[in-house]
Amino acid sequence: MDIHELINRHFESIGWDIEPHNLYDPIAYTLEAGGKRIRPTLVLMACRLFGGDVEKALMPATAIEVFHNFTLLHDDVMDNADTRRKRMTVHKKWDVNTAILSGDAMMIKAYQFLENVPADKLPAALSLFSRTAIEVCEGQQYDVDFERRDDVTIEEYYRMIRLKTAVLLAGSLKLGAILADAPADDADALYDFGIAIGIAFQLRDDYLDVYGDERTFGKKIGGDILCGKRTFLLINALKNGSVSQRQTICQLLKNGGIPAEEKIAAVTAIYDSLDMPKVCADAMEEYYSRAMQALSRITDKDDAEKAPFVEFARSLMGRTE
Amino acid sequence: MDIHELINRHFESIGWDIEPHNLYDPIAYTLEAGGKRIRPTLVLMACRLFGGDVEKALMPATAIEVFHNFTLLHDDVMDNADTRRKRMTVHKKWDVNTAILSGDAMMIKAYQFLENVPADKLPAALSLFSRTAIEVCEGQQYDVDFERRDDVTIEEYYRMIRLKTAVLLAGSLKLGAILADAPADDADALYDFGIAIGIAFQLRDDYLDVYGDERTFGKKIGGDILCGKRTFLLINALKNGSVSQRQTICQLLKNGGIPAEEKIAAVTAIYDSLDMPKVCADAMEEYYSRAMQALSRITDKDDAEKAPFVEFARSLMGRTE
Repeated sequence: MDIHELINRHFESIGWDIEPHNLYDPIAYTLEAGGKRIRPTLVLMACRLFGGDVEKALMPATAIEVFHNFTLLHDDVMDNADTRRKRMTVHKKWDVNTAILSGDAMMIKAYQFLENVPADKLPAALSLFSRTAIEVCEGQQYDVDFERRDDVTIEEYYRMIRLKTAVLLAGSLKLGAILADAPADDADALYDFGIAIGIAFQLRDDYLDVYGDERTFGKKIGGDILCGKRTFLLINALKNGSVSQRQTICQLLKNGGIPAEEKIAAVTAIYDSLDMPKVCADAMEEYYSRAMQALSRITDKDDAEKAPFVEFARSLMGRTE
Repeated sequence: MDIHELINRHFESIGWDIEPHNLYDPIAYTLEAGGKRIRPTLVLMACRLFGGDVEKALMPATAIEVFHNFTLLHDDVMDNADTRRKRMTVHKKWDVNTAILSGDAMMIKAYQFLENVPADKLPAALSLFSRTAIEVCEGQQYDVDFERRDDVTIEEYYRMIRLKTAVLLAGSLKLGAILADAPADDADALYDFGIAIGIAFQLRDDYLDVYGDERTFGKKIGGDILCGKRTFLLINALKNGSVSQRQTICQLLKNGGIPAEEKIAAVTAIYDSLDMPKVCADAMEEYYSRAMQALSRITDKDDAEKAPFVEFARSLMGRTE
């Protein structure tokens, strides 16, 4: 069976009709919204690459996906977001306390799914899972911290997106490799592939927020500019722009009186003049290339076997060739 | 070394001076407030009873205590409490988002402390830990649900306090027993002892909220009455009171215009007329006796070895003989 179908069927088979309903209904609601199930797919892809039993990897893959959705649930509370995947967020549909407590329960459920890892692999899987989970929290905290700072460096930005976005993709791949008893070096190579592709993906997300097509991007263009988010583009502009450009950006970000459209246009104009589309494309290319290098370290698998990972990297980066 | 001293030294030795500080400082702040460290003490007591290595049980005992403090942190957000252990709560000292995210990180850290369980005992320890953790969340949810209901039964009340309060005490004891390779029946007996004593403790807490001495109770007397909490006393009064008494209670609870002192006095008068101190004392005695029965199921340990558990039960119930 196709990995995607396997995952979807598995998620549909999990019963959430448990008491107390006010605790479990929001979890079911969050998970039934679907999403692309990227992370469990990566667990299963990695497991299959090294000849593991894909069916047995379903439960640990579920642990990762449930954890990921838990982070979205609590992030939405912290951002006071109204919608997620075109539906009301949990704290809007229920209330903030429900979102906090159901989120907590969701994280514990994630660990319960992880219990299905065979005993001999449990220490490694548990350690990887918790380390990844705490790193995601650290990344989220750095992201919050950055909002109050004007002096975030590119290095700090990379560390933040590595933690917030990349480690969970990398951890998913490594978990699948561990479940399949892959050689440690190969598991690490897949991890590094995941880190590089995760960073490239976040760079692309930052780029698309300014230069994307609203119809395919799924979010309003310029959202990051309006909330003053420390993106790759903003940090670069604040580093490489002229004194007057930097001043203009800072004034625009702090001034709440300027209409949104005007603010987005003015900041975008500065980005244009600093050749930001090319700067972004170069950085994405660099990390895409690092991802391919990491993949090439797995020498005992041929190109056909590694093709799904290249395909995944391409699709995540929106590449057609 | 004395168990208490061992635990306190251990908690002082944990370094929380880690980046990002806005994530870890609230965790350090929460844990340095201390508290009685009841749960890790129970882990170590159980471990010692069955001849286990108490030093090696310190890390898993820490997992339980960190988890317990995480629940307090998030509970304080949900209750919008100002103080905890005579200090500002995390969400007041920092903000709600910090309290949510640091709490999340704290739960993951709890699981990381649990990684120190020997591999052969990890599956049992992890399963017990997660089951206990999710039950605590369920208990919290029932408690919230009860606030909106006037028809909570005594059976539902017992289920709620079992989950919210008792399972973590019971789970601590069982974890210690597992770490010491105790026979399964003995581990279960200790678990049942913990459940009974936990329920008795919560009954006493409900009782003291009305009949306690403010100087030793540590909280304002009548707090549960003022917020309409479904305590053992209220549920009993709503079940066994006369029609007019029940009506009076319902009116008092719903009427915000009556001065606090008056409300507390009126409800207490009804409790008095229903002989509630005796009803409470009988229920506590019943559960204390169940705890002692559970302890007596551990036949290969003598009274001297079991004395610390009897002592613990007595102190938790405020008994002097």
